[in-house]
Amino acid sequence: MDYVNGPGRNHLFVPGPVNIPDQVIRAMSRNNEDYRSPAIPALTKTLLEDVKKIFKTTSGTPFLIPTTGTGAWESALTNTLSPGDRIVSFLIGQFSLLWIDQQQRLNFNVDVVESEWGQGANLEALASKLAEDKAHTIKAICIVHNETATGVTNNLVTVRKILDQYSHPALLLVDGVSSICAIDFRMDEWGVDVALTGSQKALSLPTGIGIVCASPKAIEASKSAKSVRVFFDWKDYLKFYNLGTYWPYTPSIQLLYGLRAALDLLFEEGLDNVITRHNRLATATRMAVEAWGLKNCTQKEEWHSDTVTAVVVPGYIDSSEIVRRAWKRYNLCLGLGLNKVAGKVFRIGHLGNLNELQLLGCLGGVEMVLKDVGYPVKLGSGIAAAAAYLQNTTPLIPSRI
Amino acid sequence: MDYVNGPGRNHLFVPGPVNIPDQVIRAMSRNNEDYRSPAIPALTKTLLEDVKKIFKTTSGTPFLIPTTGTGAWESALTNTLSPGDRIVSFLIGQFSLLWIDQQQRLNFNVDVVESEWGQGANLEALASKLAEDKAHTIKAICIVHNETATGVTNNLVTVRKILDQYSHPALLLVDGVSSICAIDFRMDEWGVDVALTGSQKALSLPTGIGIVCASPKAIEASKSAKSVRVFFDWKDYLKFYNLGTYWPYTPSIQLLYGLRAALDLLFEEGLDNVITRHNRLATATRMAVEAWGLKNCTQKEEWHSDTVTAVVVPGYIDSSEIVRRAWKRYNLCLGLGLNKVAGKVFRIGHLGNLNELQLLGCLGGVEMVLKDVGYPVKLGSGIAAAAAYLQNTTPLIPSRI
Amino acid sequence: MDYVNGPGRNHLFVPGPVNIPDQVIRAMSRNNEDYRSPAIPALTKTLLEDVKKIFKTTSGTPFLIPTTGTGAWESALTNTLSPGDRIVSFLIGQFSLLWIDQQQRLNFNVDVVESEWGQGANLEALASKLAEDKAHTIKAICIVHNETATGVTNNLVTVRKILDQYSHPALLLVDGVSSICAIDFRMDEWGVDVALTGSQKALSLPTGIGIVCASPKAIEASKSAKSVRVFFDWKDYLKFYNLGTYWPYTPSIQLLYGLRAALDLLFEEGLDNVITRHNRLATATRMAVEAWGLKNCTQKEEWHSDTVTAVVVPGYIDSSEIVRRAWKRYNLCLGLGLNKVAGKVFRIGHLGNLNELQLLGCLGGVEMVLKDVGYPVKLGSGIAAAAAYLQNTTPLIPSRI
Amino acid sequence: MDYVNGPGRNHLFVPGPVNIPDQVIRAMSRNNEDYRSPAIPALTKTLLEDVKKIFKTTSGTPFLIPTTGTGAWESALTNTLSPGDRIVSFLIGQFSLLWIDQQQRLNFNVDVVESEWGQGANLEALASKLAEDKAHTIKAICIVHNETATGVTNNLVTVRKILDQYSHPALLLVDGVSSICAIDFRMDEWGVDVALTGSQKALSLPTGIGIVCASPKAIEASKSAKSVRVFFDWKDYLKFYNLGTYWPYTPSIQLLYGLRAALDLLFEEGLDNVITRHNRLATATRMAVEAWGLKNCTQKEEWHSDTVTAVVVPGYIDSSEIVRRAWKRYNLCLGLGLNKVAGKVFRIGHLGNLNELQLLGCLGGVEMVLKDVGYPVKLGSGIAAAAAYLQNTTPLIPSRI
Repeated sequence: MDYVNGPGRNHLFVPGPVNIPDQVIRAMSRNNEDYRSPAIPALTKTLLEDVKKIFKTTSGTPFLIPTTGTGAWESALTNTLSPGDRIVSFLIGQFSLLWIDQQQRLNFNVDVVESEWGQGANLEALASKLAEDKAHTIKAICIVHNETATGVTNNLVTVRKILDQYSHPALLLVDGVSSICAIDFRMDEWGVDVALTGSQKALSLPTGIGIVCASPKAIEASKSAKSVRVFFDWKDYLKFYNLGTYWPYTPSIQLLYGLRAALDLLFEEGLDNVITRHNRLATATRMAVEAWGLKNCTQKEEWHSDTVTAVVVPGYIDSSEIVRRAWKRYNLCLGLGLNKVAGKVFRIGHLGNLNELQLLGCLGGVEMVLKDVGYPVKLGSGIAAAAAYLQNTTPLIPSRI
Repeated sequence: MDYVNGPGRNHLFVPGPVNIPDQVIRAMSRNNEDYRSPAIPALTKTLLEDVKKIFKTTSGTPFLIPTTGTGAWESALTNTLSPGDRIVSFLIGQFSLLWIDQQQRLNFNVDVVESEWGQGANLEALASKLAEDKAHTIKAICIVHNETATGVTNNLVTVRKILDQYSHPALLLVDGVSSICAIDFRMDEWGVDVALTGSQKALSLPTGIGIVCASPKAIEASKSAKSVRVFFDWKDYLKFYNLGTYWPYTPSIQLLYGLRAALDLLFEEGLDNVITRHNRLATATRMAVEAWGLKNCTQKEEWHSDTVTAVVVPGYIDSSEIVRRAWKRYNLCLGLGLNKVAGKVFRIGHLGNLNELQLLGCLGGVEMVLKDVGYPVKLGSGIAAAAAYLQNTTPLIPSRI
Repeated sequence: MDYVNGPGRNHLFVPGPVNIPDQVIRAMSRNNEDYRSPAIPALTKTLLEDVKKIFKTTSGTPFLIPTTGTGAWESALTNTLSPGDRIVSFLIGQFSLLWIDQQQRLNFNVDVVESEWGQGANLEALASKLAEDKAHTIKAICIVHNETATGVTNNLVTVRKILDQYSHPALLLVDGVSSICAIDFRMDEWGVDVALTGSQKALSLPTGIGIVCASPKAIEASKSAKSVRVFFDWKDYLKFYNLGTYWPYTPSIQLLYGLRAALDLLFEEGLDNVITRHNRLATATRMAVEAWGLKNCTQKEEWHSDTVTAVVVPGYIDSSEIVRRAWKRYNLCLGLGLNKVAGKVFRIGHLGNLNELQLLGCLGGVEMVLKDVGYPVKLGSGIAAAAAYLQNTTPLIPSRI
Repeated sequence: MDYVNGPGRNHLFVPGPVNIPDQVIRAMSRNNEDYRSPAIPALTKTLLEDVKKIFKTTSGTPFLIPTTGTGAWESALTNTLSPGDRIVSFLIGQFSLLWIDQQQRLNFNVDVVESEWGQGANLEALASKLAEDKAHTIKAICIVHNETATGVTNNLVTVRKILDQYSHPALLLVDGVSSICAIDFRMDEWGVDVALTGSQKALSLPTGIGIVCASPKAIEASKSAKSVRVFFDWKDYLKFYNLGTYWPYTPSIQLLYGLRAALDLLFEEGLDNVITRHNRLATATRMAVEAWGLKNCTQKEEWHSDTVTAVVVPGYIDSSEIVRRAWKRYNLCLGLGLNKVAGKVFRIGHLGNLNELQLLGCLGGVEMVLKDVGYPVKLGSGIAAAAAYLQNTTPLIPSRI
């Protein structure tokens, strides 16, 4: 039963789940195995070692939890904090909102620092709060590196600087769901205590692994954190790490082999090249948006996200109609506007295993849809702008024969 | 990178994860899709409707949670109970032990009713406790339908009878991880309040979906249950069920299509035929064990599990060596003895998508391994016993041309 | 070992082998089966029945030969003709040239009617030859429906009219390799005696089945044809058709299941809708070529092919460099110019399982490559022209939910 | 549409097509590619180099023809011989019969040397013929290395000795369809001029490549051979080998990647280990047959085939019923008796990617079927005999962790 029909490929340009490379689909097309045989621990060992590289950490401890990003959030919070703990959290869009909702339901005491949707985290407010907090009542700073709903990337270097400026010991917990492996992220250098992502994002796998990485300070905090947790408890993982069998409960064999293949591809292309490619495709997308005469939801260039672009449509157009029509007419999947920006923006995900011509096809589709819904776009204008940039910047593929 | 080498097929006879039918592997070999497009909700709707059939419920509400059995346990407990709640739980082997550990860590007040490993739940103790509990301080009975570590199946009909006898309102929470779809299970008829299984067990999928089904009484309980939960909270699912978009967070597209294929296969064969087939293969296995002169870990016939057989080895043999050697020499995966029965039993899983000749191959392998490790087995004896039974009972495959 | 690297998808726009739909890839991802079991004949029966529909024949007899288009040619010729037989054959490009080479090596007496490359078959010459041939020494007319090297489609209706006008009994043998399933083809209505295609063309399968369909007249001719043949002999197929086991030698199990899936998809979309889609994508491509200021190799509109467009480049550019660079820089596969048009044309295949946005991506890639090699293309110009046409003509996908 | 239903795996024990390793199925689960891009020639180059190893030749020239074994036969004959050429050919079973039929239909002058079915080639007759043929009118000796219908392996060393003894220049053409990669074969050492096999046999791939290897003497002969051929003509291949593009017409991309994976697996296990494994499984099978009290169709031990065992059933049993019932009841595919031995033998293929436990499952199935059809087999007897042998001889899998 295939619900997505129509000839040709589906054009998947939501900011997750993203396109899976064929090599990874192949690697995952397999039967189950006994995860207590010697093979799976041996495989897991390579994964835990290599996954640290995507966080740019050598001192961190990674956990490959059979869950989603939401579960990864919960793992990060419950392992490091106790009920009632004060935390500072930035509300800048739907995903930071959802994380804050989780923080509150987990009984933390959340200082919500809100920005207009389309803006980055208000780091001046952070500075004030830290300045005032001589007693170190703030136990953690929670920040979304890249807000998927608005296409805003927060500046983590500045966050770290502010923490250092006030020598504040708060833990720094970062949601890197739509950034890690696609936007520069440096766990050790930036002093991040817990970083996390999901397999279905820039790693270009199916949903199913919440990838969490904890600094030594976070591991230390987990020893005294009083939040109730069992499934998400790092302690059980650490126990099985010590045993060399690695898994407190059954992992997905297919995702482990898929992760191996995904990491191999990532390292073959080169993590920094992957990040550069995301920037190249994102820049081309932004040029197209400008050429169409439309506004980027992100209000300043410094916040521009390299993994998703939220495009503001004129008031007389319902952006949901753009998304619906793209799907029904052109087999193109775009992201909806969510919550405060519902109906006002649509989103182009340019995340994961993509290349230039895929993006041009998507941009062509967006142009046709815009015309379909009555926006007076000049067909070809956005693509021309994107192609001009890409034609100057696309490298030869080095691994080609 | 394939760690399992050697020519020919891997013979997977652990009690999970189990063999995946080729049709399901094919159905899952696919790219990601946008789970907010109309396709995935339409697919999900059929799954939620059909998955109720495997629980034999019409009034239950199913949840397909991106997690493992451990997570499904946690979902069942935290949605229906509040910290400090008194529950009765039966310890009869490693998996009931782990569930009890979770119950305690989640701050419930657990009356542990322990049996010798190899025996079923002590239901007389249950009767006493209920008889005494006039005040209805017991909020839930937690029982493992089939204890995977010892191959013991508990009698849920009796549990229900005892509850009814004392008109006790306690919730009945059942771990059906290694029973549902393989051993007769009737949620509505038996008045089960929460039943759960994992995708990698009798449904013969990869790990990744914790399948939980809640009775109306359990749903009602969830409205006042005070256990802290977010990722596992049914409320978020119910909200999205009402919206018709179904998913509070990202599901695995591949597992949804896989579940569709698995259910289609299951209904094609017929759920009752599947259960009969499990009984037939289990009976053949038990006959082989007897022919080898070995003891079944399960102490009485009424507890014999139709999904896994734990075989006790003589004291002079380390059962772990059997498992190790089966893997290294014959590409055969058997289950280890766990905890109290470590080194003393090995386990043959006969669970999921299997047929007669696969089982005979496994039994042949076990015989050779037994000889390898010095047990004076008569080669062919177990297979002869199993084959005699199977030759009399195996049906013609009705769907054949 | 994957030789094609680089991130994202390969953009396959050669006129064969073409993109395989995911459903077909999945259907083929399977183990071998016993082709003498009842299953494979049952499957084959449906294939032989349904494959006639793609030829639009009810009286024809199809053969699914484990070979390529070249083998299908040989099968068509050797089963219907005897050494020394006079045939008329049209040379209009590389593939008709290769077929004529085969005809000559098989010892037929070939009247070669040559046209300039870029023109269709000279049907006036055919008329003259038939007019003169009162003795009916001409035994067959061999014509390529669609010449893949130049993007020229011949008019078979006219061929049939001329044959009828002279009441000439010559067999009409048609190479439909790059037309059938994509360009209107009517075996019965047009009185075609042998038609053939290859699985890797519009059927969108891997290479491996030469699909040949013979009219009753051709079957009759095969009884007296003296060309030596064994592997390609229809007689052996007919014998096994009668036995109901269908296969004189081992077929590819995977291709049979793949063909089933491909036909299912084809009929689901509707053969006429598929043909219309090919025309729509081809028209858009031709508009792009015109917008780029480049010439179509096909000299008249009546010959324009709906499956491949050969684009003439200015004399100062080597078209091979375009193809090389498209591959190395943009992961785009275009067709080389062959033989007489080597270095002078490159080819865009718009054949098989494709949709609008894939084509726009390709056209964007071609624009960038043209700029790369020094042609002063206005970026976006071709896409704008194509998108304007497609935005007006693309239907909503009816099967979408 | 899956015609083979029923739970669990299909047990494929026909002597071809055989079980495909999962790694190979995965490697083939892919889209088409442009075979004129640089990637496919680079891949082909490695295949042509490595495929020589399975023939144990350094001087031979291999051809990977998109065809079946029947086509490979035709390629061997038509490229080296001219119509009317005298050849000596041995009729010992159905496949040698079919090859002789082809030889006759290709207009060669065939001296058929017939043996009783179940016996090897009559090499004394060969010696006599060569002794008499002072004029060297015999141009080729055609011999099937392993007759799949009767399970008879001919002694090629003796054939070469006889040719040498008479210093006879006849070409030695060997059908290695069911031997190469499974039974010791040494093209150079034994002076074989053309050897051939099919992808769906011991290489454990789908059907679709006829693999032919020609000695320098055969290549020389091809220059003057007058048999008409185009599709099968080595000349076209050699032309494209020289160009470095390798393919005169479109290969199956999937089979090329599959062959790469199959060769990698073969070399990883070690060709000689693979041959030893075939001998081990064949010996076990023969022991089971003996234990059942049934006769091997092969009349002398020296002819015992290590890839297929033809088992003679008592006169009161129709062997076809055994095959039918094995399929319908146990999902077990056995080979039918063909032609002269139809109804009298059934065949167990133990060829390709198989291991011990798979064979034991098959033998268990055969025992149950024998009982089903009324043969008084002692259940377990054959398996006991086979297991006793295998338990002594199966090696630890060296590549295991």
